[in-house]
Amino acid sequence: MPSDESLLRSISTTETEGSSVTGRSIKKSSHPKNDLDQSVWKIASIFLFCALGWALSIIVLVLLHKDPCPNTPISPKNEEDVTNEPKIFVITPTYARPERMADLTMLAQVLMHVKNLHWLVVEDGGRIAEPVARLLQRSNIEHTYFSAVTPDYLPKRGWAQRNAALFHLRDQYINYKDQALVYFADDDNSYDHRVFHEYIRKVKRLGVWAVGLAGTSRVEAPRVENNTVVGWDVYYRPHRKYAVDMAGFAVSLRLVLRSLALFGKECVGHDPEDCFLRQLSVPMNELEPFGCDNDPKDILVWHTKTVVSKMRGETYGYVFEEKNV
Amino acid sequence: MPSDESLLRSISTTETEGSSVTGRSIKKSSHPKNDLDQSVWKIASIFLFCALGWALSIIVLVLLHKDPCPNTPISPKNEEDVTNEPKIFVITPTYARPERMADLTMLAQVLMHVKNLHWLVVEDGGRIAEPVARLLQRSNIEHTYFSAVTPDYLPKRGWAQRNAALFHLRDQYINYKDQALVYFADDDNSYDHRVFHEYIRKVKRLGVWAVGLAGTSRVEAPRVENNTVVGWDVYYRPHRKYAVDMAGFAVSLRLVLRSLALFGKECVGHDPEDCFLRQLSVPMNELEPFGCDNDPKDILVWHTKTVVSKMRGETYGYVFEEKNV
Repeated sequence: MPSDESLLRSISTTETEGSSVTGRSIKKSSHPKNDLDQSVWKIASIFLFCALGWALSIIVLVLLHKDPCPNTPISPKNEEDVTNEPKIFVITPTYARPERMADLTMLAQVLMHVKNLHWLVVEDGGRIAEPVARLLQRSNIEHTYFSAVTPDYLPKRGWAQRNAALFHLRDQYINYKDQALVYFADDDNSYDHRVFHEYIRKVKRLGVWAVGLAGTSRVEAPRVENNTVVGWDVYYRPHRKYAVDMAGFAVSLRLVLRSLALFGKECVGHDPEDCFLRQLSVPMNELEPFGCDNDPKDILVWHTKTVVSKMRGETYGYVFEEKNV
Repeated sequence: MPSDESLLRSISTTETEGSSVTGRSIKKSSHPKNDLDQSVWKIASIFLFCALGWALSIIVLVLLHKDPCPNTPISPKNEEDVTNEPKIFVITPTYARPERMADLTMLAQVLMHVKNLHWLVVEDGGRIAEPVARLLQRSNIEHTYFSAVTPDYLPKRGWAQRNAALFHLRDQYINYKDQALVYFADDDNSYDHRVFHEYIRKVKRLGVWAVGLAGTSRVEAPRVENNTVVGWDVYYRPHRKYAVDMAGFAVSLRLVLRSLALFGKECVGHDPEDCFLRQLSVPMNELEPFGCDNDPKDILVWHTKTVVSKMRGETYGYVFEEKNV
């Protein structure tokens, strides 16, 4: 490849000497200075042309590298690259009922928007359900699906299944070194995917946030002063130590592995969230509140429930689950 | 810009005459033929360099245009490249109530999995709601959001809002030449994204499929023999001509534009789906059934409803909608 200087000189030499083989391709000039100027412009044009192509390449490549899918509507913008960010373990107790596949399908489609997530789905009963297994498989979400029977001394409200998932984490991830989070997500709640990106993924030890439609309350939220949780803005049992809904907190995997916290027999008669969180021994002033300073203060998770009427008619061969009794 | 030929000749002239201003930049050759060859190689190199830059630009731009994010894991696999496939217009009537943001958020997150979709959200009332406008904006879903007041002679069940969306389509898309589909998706139902990819997008004129939990029925489905709809497998009013739930059919935009079908005054006292579809004049044996031959026969859409208890307590400054009265 000739250097810029040598090329420039090679051509300018031609022009200053005013010589030409063809006479057609190079206009013979009566003034060597004009010829030199013309040649310089020609060369400049070539290099401009070259440079433009390369500059365009570089600009496109840089833009591509910066933000590979700036306008991809299905990729939440804050989830561009989270492969090195904390893994989120989502624990979902579930049981067969007519609206279960509808609920689980909707939840799966939210979780499909969240990268680096492991979904622990625990069936209440002696065995797993084929429709749920197929749903998990086609969702492409990293998952573990197993079943746990609720013992007589615990209420049938997902306690035994959450405990089974906690045992699984303590058994399978005991040597997990990286930061990871644990979140309890019931299958009938409603989740904004931002609760995973903007809250859960950023928790260091124990994070808390507002929940909408919690029971019969409009909103339940941590009360925050100077970025410190000083109490709870709740209607129902305001004097609980941790007056937070199951969907309103996430805890670091490290804290789970270091504790023996469970939804156990000693929690019967108490609120399960309060009972579980007390076992983690995190002082109130070390709780991490989220979303309290946002403007507007959006709720990112709702404690909803799907209506179940008495179901009539056939199922005509379609996949349909009856309620476990 | 000098032509390729003139540039080539200009430089080759220099070399063949063996002259140089500096003697450093151009090697004096003892053989004019060799000098010519060398110059040709130099010129070829310049053009190769230019061409490489531009080629790289074009390749990157073409790849970017073809499939900007081939490995986005949250993209359902069957939605890889649908830019040339029929557009889906989804019509959602909505109104303010405590559970509305939860419902709309969950629906938005399903629709975020579907490309080439336009969401028409129509508020029941005199004005649009800021939280919904923000939700639509951040979803990155192509959408139109407006309001329509329900007149006294129509029930407050989304009829006037669906009509307003149909008027909008007939007004704004009257010259739309490509195949497109229209689907009525209420905000409290549950949708598997496959209903969009595997059913709606493939409809030619009027497609029908099973709906779970339709009212108090377990399942409502078209009865199909030899791939032809011959009746309806339903518990409720089996003698309707079109015994199909609002979530159980999609119709081509062309058919909508060619008809004046509405949920109008004449539908009062009748089932809205049956009344609307009768106005499209599609013979029963030309209906297109979906999902009837699948094994297993999964339901891809459920007519669900979120429970609304009497809500108590404050909202503590969080975004919360009360029910419109």
